[in-house]
Amino acid sequence: MSPVPTSSDRDVVSELTTGRLSVYLRCLTFLELQGQKTVSSAELADRFHLNSAQIRKDLACFGEFGTRGVGYDVSQLKQQLVQELGIDRTRNAVIIGAGNLGMALADYAGFNANGFHIVALLDIDPVKVGRTSRQGIPVLAYEQLDDVVRRNRVEIGIIAVTATAAQIVHDALVAAGLRAILNFAPVQLRLHEGVKVKSVDLRINLESLSFHLKKVEDGMT
Amino acid sequence: MSPVPTSSDRDVVSELTTGRLSVYLRCLTFLELQGQKTVSSAELADRFHLNSAQIRKDLACFGEFGTRGVGYDVSQLKQQLVQELGIDRTRNAVIIGAGNLGMALADYAGFNANGFHIVALLDIDPVKVGRTSRQGIPVLAYEQLDDVVRRNRVEIGIIAVTATAAQIVHDALVAAGLRAILNFAPVQLRLHEGVKVKSVDLRINLESLSFHLKKVEDGMT
Repeated sequence: MSPVPTSSDRDVVSELTTGRLSVYLRCLTFLELQGQKTVSSAELADRFHLNSAQIRKDLACFGEFGTRGVGYDVSQLKQQLVQELGIDRTRNAVIIGAGNLGMALADYAGFNANGFHIVALLDIDPVKVGRTSRQGIPVLAYEQLDDVVRRNRVEIGIIAVTATAAQIVHDALVAAGLRAILNFAPVQLRLHEGVKVKSVDLRINLESLSFHLKKVEDGMT
Repeated sequence: MSPVPTSSDRDVVSELTTGRLSVYLRCLTFLELQGQKTVSSAELADRFHLNSAQIRKDLACFGEFGTRGVGYDVSQLKQQLVQELGIDRTRNAVIIGAGNLGMALADYAGFNANGFHIVALLDIDPVKVGRTSRQGIPVLAYEQLDDVVRRNRVEIGIIAVTATAAQIVHDALVAAGLRAILNFAPVQLRLHEGVKVKSVDLRINLESLSFHLKKVEDGMT
């Protein structure tokens, strides 16, 4: 067994235990768009197939208890969640790797809005440097990493390089002072103390669809 | 309120409630690679920060109870999960949209392995048709959708087009007979009865990192 913690040990878990606040935020944004002013934990639970006791417990953690018989104020609770998630101010990010994935992420709706800003893509390929994504995010030289991070107060690094290059890039991001890394490379990274790495496993979504197809085949739905 | 169910109502939930089997599968694959033969639910829970009672409950659902004092046979349990997830045979998929995202997904490790096969990318842009991804997945004309699905027994459609085009593509995939759709477009789709749509929200990962940074700022870690 490896003495060094790897991303598989830790990140495999976050899929299950984190993200509830983000889910609540999406529900509330949806209700706000529909013009709904208040919502009870029971209604939230019912409409979005969540657990009402869990909702009350999570929200009580930051002092939101709702009003008996009325529920939570939708806009106020949404604003509270935005604050709790730390996206009430903009956090800058860089993407390492200006291949198809990096370019797609640079222009991905939600990566460049409401609390996040993609400053640049960085790549070692001189042919790519100087280009921009369709939305105009510039591709800069990877050697400028430290400089770009410092000048733009970048807080988040996004790894969109091959599995082979991912560890080197990860270590460089940490050396540049970043403490939050989103990894798209299909590889177990050796982690550094105090640095949060979130690895994205897109395959899990296909497995969920396969599970559904299998249930249909087995006549269970 | 919309009378038609949208993806937000339903999919926002799956983030929380599904995926446990996939997580177990990753843990077991990891242990198998390390040469470990048996594992208890307590050890699984401890090493991967899962809940041991939940693990036992989930696995008992398909008749896996382990052996008292020994635990589960790693390889056997892994094979059982592969079967439960319906990936003991290959399921074919098509990607609609051969832009940066579609191209990245076509070559994404895990989308073309162990139970999944990307047959083709489909696009309406004649300039893109005839090209291939770096790994050699062909880009075909979108008009050929029905044909490609029928000839290759495609079961899964992956939407990698803009938000504006996503609903039309979704409806075309359903009309072509698909019952499992993975949606990357940031839009709430109107769903069809009997069709499973899984929408991927990549932003949730950034929010999780922001939450961590905020905790550090607040001196909570």
